[in-house]
Amino acid sequence: MSVVIETVESHALAGNPLGDPTARQVAIWLPPSYPRDRDRRYPVIVWLAGYGGTGEMLFSGNPWQPGLGTRLDRLVESGALGEAIVVAPDCFTRWGGAQYLDSPALGNYETHLCAEVLPAIDRRYRTIGARDGRAIGGKSSGGFGALVLAMRHPDLFAAVASHAGDMAFELSALKDLPTAARTLRRRGGVEAFVAHFEASERKSGDDFTTMMVLAQAGAYSPETGRPGRVALPFDVDTGAIDWAVWKRWKAWDPIELLPAHAEALRRMKLVFLDAGTRDEHNLDLGARIFVARLLALGVACEHQEFDDGHRGTAYRYDVSLPKLAAAIGARPAR
Amino acid sequence: MSVVIETVESHALAGNPLGDPTARQVAIWLPPSYPRDRDRRYPVIVWLAGYGGTGEMLFSGNPWQPGLGTRLDRLVESGALGEAIVVAPDCFTRWGGAQYLDSPALGNYETHLCAEVLPAIDRRYRTIGARDGRAIGGKSSGGFGALVLAMRHPDLFAAVASHAGDMAFELSALKDLPTAARTLRRRGGVEAFVAHFEASERKSGDDFTTMMVLAQAGAYSPETGRPGRVALPFDVDTGAIDWAVWKRWKAWDPIELLPAHAEALRRMKLVFLDAGTRDEHNLDLGARIFVARLLALGVACEHQEFDDGHRGTAYRYDVSLPKLAAAIGARPAR
Amino acid sequence: MSVVIETVESHALAGNPLGDPTARQVAIWLPPSYPRDRDRRYPVIVWLAGYGGTGEMLFSGNPWQPGLGTRLDRLVESGALGEAIVVAPDCFTRWGGAQYLDSPALGNYETHLCAEVLPAIDRRYRTIGARDGRAIGGKSSGGFGALVLAMRHPDLFAAVASHAGDMAFELSALKDLPTAARTLRRRGGVEAFVAHFEASERKSGDDFTTMMVLAQAGAYSPETGRPGRVALPFDVDTGAIDWAVWKRWKAWDPIELLPAHAEALRRMKLVFLDAGTRDEHNLDLGARIFVARLLALGVACEHQEFDDGHRGTAYRYDVSLPKLAAAIGARPAR
Amino acid sequence: MSVVIETVESHALAGNPLGDPTARQVAIWLPPSYPRDRDRRYPVIVWLAGYGGTGEMLFSGNPWQPGLGTRLDRLVESGALGEAIVVAPDCFTRWGGAQYLDSPALGNYETHLCAEVLPAIDRRYRTIGARDGRAIGGKSSGGFGALVLAMRHPDLFAAVASHAGDMAFELSALKDLPTAARTLRRRGGVEAFVAHFEASERKSGDDFTTMMVLAQAGAYSPETGRPGRVALPFDVDTGAIDWAVWKRWKAWDPIELLPAHAEALRRMKLVFLDAGTRDEHNLDLGARIFVARLLALGVACEHQEFDDGHRGTAYRYDVSLPKLAAAIGARPAR
Repeated sequence: MSVVIETVESHALAGNPLGDPTARQVAIWLPPSYPRDRDRRYPVIVWLAGYGGTGEMLFSGNPWQPGLGTRLDRLVESGALGEAIVVAPDCFTRWGGAQYLDSPALGNYETHLCAEVLPAIDRRYRTIGARDGRAIGGKSSGGFGALVLAMRHPDLFAAVASHAGDMAFELSALKDLPTAARTLRRRGGVEAFVAHFEASERKSGDDFTTMMVLAQAGAYSPETGRPGRVALPFDVDTGAIDWAVWKRWKAWDPIELLPAHAEALRRMKLVFLDAGTRDEHNLDLGARIFVARLLALGVACEHQEFDDGHRGTAYRYDVSLPKLAAAIGARPAR
Repeated sequence: MSVVIETVESHALAGNPLGDPTARQVAIWLPPSYPRDRDRRYPVIVWLAGYGGTGEMLFSGNPWQPGLGTRLDRLVESGALGEAIVVAPDCFTRWGGAQYLDSPALGNYETHLCAEVLPAIDRRYRTIGARDGRAIGGKSSGGFGALVLAMRHPDLFAAVASHAGDMAFELSALKDLPTAARTLRRRGGVEAFVAHFEASERKSGDDFTTMMVLAQAGAYSPETGRPGRVALPFDVDTGAIDWAVWKRWKAWDPIELLPAHAEALRRMKLVFLDAGTRDEHNLDLGARIFVARLLALGVACEHQEFDDGHRGTAYRYDVSLPKLAAAIGARPAR
Repeated sequence: MSVVIETVESHALAGNPLGDPTARQVAIWLPPSYPRDRDRRYPVIVWLAGYGGTGEMLFSGNPWQPGLGTRLDRLVESGALGEAIVVAPDCFTRWGGAQYLDSPALGNYETHLCAEVLPAIDRRYRTIGARDGRAIGGKSSGGFGALVLAMRHPDLFAAVASHAGDMAFELSALKDLPTAARTLRRRGGVEAFVAHFEASERKSGDDFTTMMVLAQAGAYSPETGRPGRVALPFDVDTGAIDWAVWKRWKAWDPIELLPAHAEALRRMKLVFLDAGTRDEHNLDLGARIFVARLLALGVACEHQEFDDGHRGTAYRYDVSLPKLAAAIGARPAR
Repeated sequence: MSVVIETVESHALAGNPLGDPTARQVAIWLPPSYPRDRDRRYPVIVWLAGYGGTGEMLFSGNPWQPGLGTRLDRLVESGALGEAIVVAPDCFTRWGGAQYLDSPALGNYETHLCAEVLPAIDRRYRTIGARDGRAIGGKSSGGFGALVLAMRHPDLFAAVASHAGDMAFELSALKDLPTAARTLRRRGGVEAFVAHFEASERKSGDDFTTMMVLAQAGAYSPETGRPGRVALPFDVDTGAIDWAVWKRWKAWDPIELLPAHAEALRRMKLVFLDAGTRDEHNLDLGARIFVARLLALGVACEHQEFDDGHRGTAYRYDVSLPKLAAAIGARPAR
């Protein structure tokens, strides 16, 4: 396996309100022929980690659970996967992530990824360095990021895969809000909660859920003019939904973004979505809704379902990665 | 313990679309002095079972889990509870309940309870037989029923207790819809699902949830002009929320009913709400929202929270029953 | 359904150390022809409740979960079940049961059942009143009781059914001992624990497990000469197994009782065992071991397995009851 | 953080029956002063991973869950931990581990660790290189390994820490045997099961438990003269315990090893044991039993309990590591 960790120094993240580092570790997997085919240029697949993860973490497997590198090695070896460079950026934040968007509450991760990481990789490695040689994919928050970035940057990406990507927020994110409301109330608000979270080595399930809700608020409903502050889509005291804030969240739901960005997806050589039919966040239903709307708009896509839940489904990448690679012109290893 | 099962023959339920019986078994608990104080008249507490239950089932306890009768005996014996007659009607349906409402899809249970059961009890027993001597309470769907009937019939009831009553549907009922959508899709629609449900002795948790969603659809969004048919607040194929149908559900949310019925609640001698702060259906948040709105309208109420979930909380009746009884003039046993 | 509750006043239980009542409520189901065939005599099936239950509780079902009476009605109606009287005794104790044995720690429930309940039923009802017209069955602790009483009283019973009956204690009971040790340590010993248990309306799973361990200790390892006291098969402070006491438990394991009672089982017209292959107490393995030993001794039996756990498996009685009834000469209803 | 991965080529593991690699990756953490204090020699703490893990895996943390390296850095920085070299060997096998013992079924991991890894580290790094400068610790199977190796090699180690170490097998390992019996039966025996396990990317909880039982059988009850074969302590068909094989297991229970090795532990400068009082494998009770016997033998030890289960308790190392380090003469960083 050949995984390189590259540091990309970010200007976009300078002065980010959470104080997260601006020097970011990007994990890069190079295909087997890379060192010897010294004139060959390769397509690039950008792969986005889910909430709470980093690109580098995707590569840490163990003898019984292959990491992303082992998986890529196997796929190339078996002939299933054409050779491409895989780039896994680090968009982790103190709140666990940023949904790969720009936000005054968290930092400018969309800009960091699109305008800093991609050019850096193109400069430092023999990439094709053009839209038709670039795909993006990921799971969960990473599936959300892949789909949203493909919609917003069709000039950068020619294919997209979303595994159980966040969408249909009223079926997925909404049901976490009561947990967040109760937890924040008990801890005495956002700041006290974050302090508690960071101080406790054993984080409860409710703590994780609450932090994930905060990260979404950071991405979808930052307070304008008050860096680092978010509007919550619920009343902390009663849990009542604040529909005005919720509307801001929904504006970022891929299903809502779709009408205005159908053209971008139509330009894709591949739009791939999947989810397990027991997905605890109901993202299988999200994908069904998205796909139905996509087809209604006359945009082709590939949609799969499988019998599993939300977690532990990295084996699904074996399906999407070869398709993505093929879509952006990856040729088999020789 | 003195529990009598009275049969009340219903006209309101005649021809109900689910084919449920019209002869209903009403469980009646008589206070200790009832047989000997032969001239005394007693106030009445109507107690409503939760989804899937009947009044009679409330009385079936075991040596380690007291039924409602044992609980009432104890409360009277200890001096905590004034003497009142407790009436527990049977509004069970093939779909598990009817939310104590009239519906062309399920049957007219509101009418049955208010216009048939109450008069029958007043005729057959020495009740006070007037609004000021009548209270209503219950848990879960029974708490919903109590609150809604109190709001809609302030001429019948003078006090109300809602334990973890259904409300704030977007925090409680909404999160069950994905399960119902998937289950109905797998079973091939409502009729096929109901047939499966009735045929299987081991009902799964998803089956129960789906049936509960159907019962709510029966109560909140029956199809007009097509008895026994319901409009579902979601698309069976994708799980997408049908917001038009959902609006019909929300119209029955006690929180939505409140503005138009504040006057009814203001007339109550007691409005009592509680819920456990770990309620799996988030009904503690529902109660918080309801209470906040109630207070904003200048209506007094008593609101309690306790450290528990939704199930197994009948011990909370020890708090509400004495308060209800006192509010409607129950005097201690002599 | 025709269920009668008969009171049997017990001499065997007089002065029992837990202070449990001596007047016991025995639930009796009479077959449809009983009232009209006034000269007919019927075989008797004794049915034993599991730990924590009484005979009467077996009959409390609800519209979605048939009680034993509804189940018997259906079976007779469908022609599957020959007509027999079903007798469900009450051997509940303050500790939840007594494993249907005589014990100085709990009371003499084996004597009560065999020498008091059976004769009382034979006197009060038109039973065949002889061994060949009597069968015994039950589930869990009731399956244990059925098997052990059949082994010890082949003069009383001619057929036996054990559903997931307690056996192979090293695979089932042993793994509950650590929970009991910890709980008793925390509560400060047996007496303090029992007081806590009885005072708390919400009993935790650990509390139930601990009480169940106590009931077994009461049945298997009572202290001699100190009524109401038990020897525990573990050290309360460390949880270390006390192998001397454990040996007393194992002496009551049906698998250990088998060699000395093989002849009794050989005389049975039916020995039926089953268990679910996901039984949480590993009683499917217990049954496999018992059956293997039984066959090695040349005793015939019927052994079934099914895909389920330990709880909620009353539907299995539909298999055993008709077989038991047939074995003791029950004829179909006319 | 300064973690080095050293390869140690093993002769002891040559020809091991599972075909596991002989070149082993040992993770080594060097204290802050190591690079600059070029004449200083350091004590060594050997830290053993639990079942299913490797030394290297102990170091892979994430921003919210510190790995062992981050933990050591913090401890040194805060002044709590004296400077020592921490060595985390790789004794992983295809069956998930070998309990750090020599076995004809798995390979000679005790020899590998004691006679190959330790000397290699002493050669390659500036260690004190003597018993009084060496401690050993670990959690779960690693806690077992630490305790057993300390007992068997008091010439190599002068202090030991066992976090929730395997012991009192009748309370811990025994209750996993039924799961293993059922799983092996369903899969058609050991070989078919292992093939299934290795082929399936999603391993179930029962699969993990079964593999863990196999690894223990490999360590405790290998078949003599048939490399790679194990005797199972149960009958695969019925689940009946094979007490003869079980006796071989129990011979490796630290509690059984204790009497013959008390002298070795008496020589230790520190014997530390802990476990969470909700340990799912009851290892808190195991520790209580071990400690009681140890004290009865007049051997001093430090015993702690804490309110947690078996998993996710690496924060406990913050307690043991400083004590171990102090016991073997580690001095604070300057």
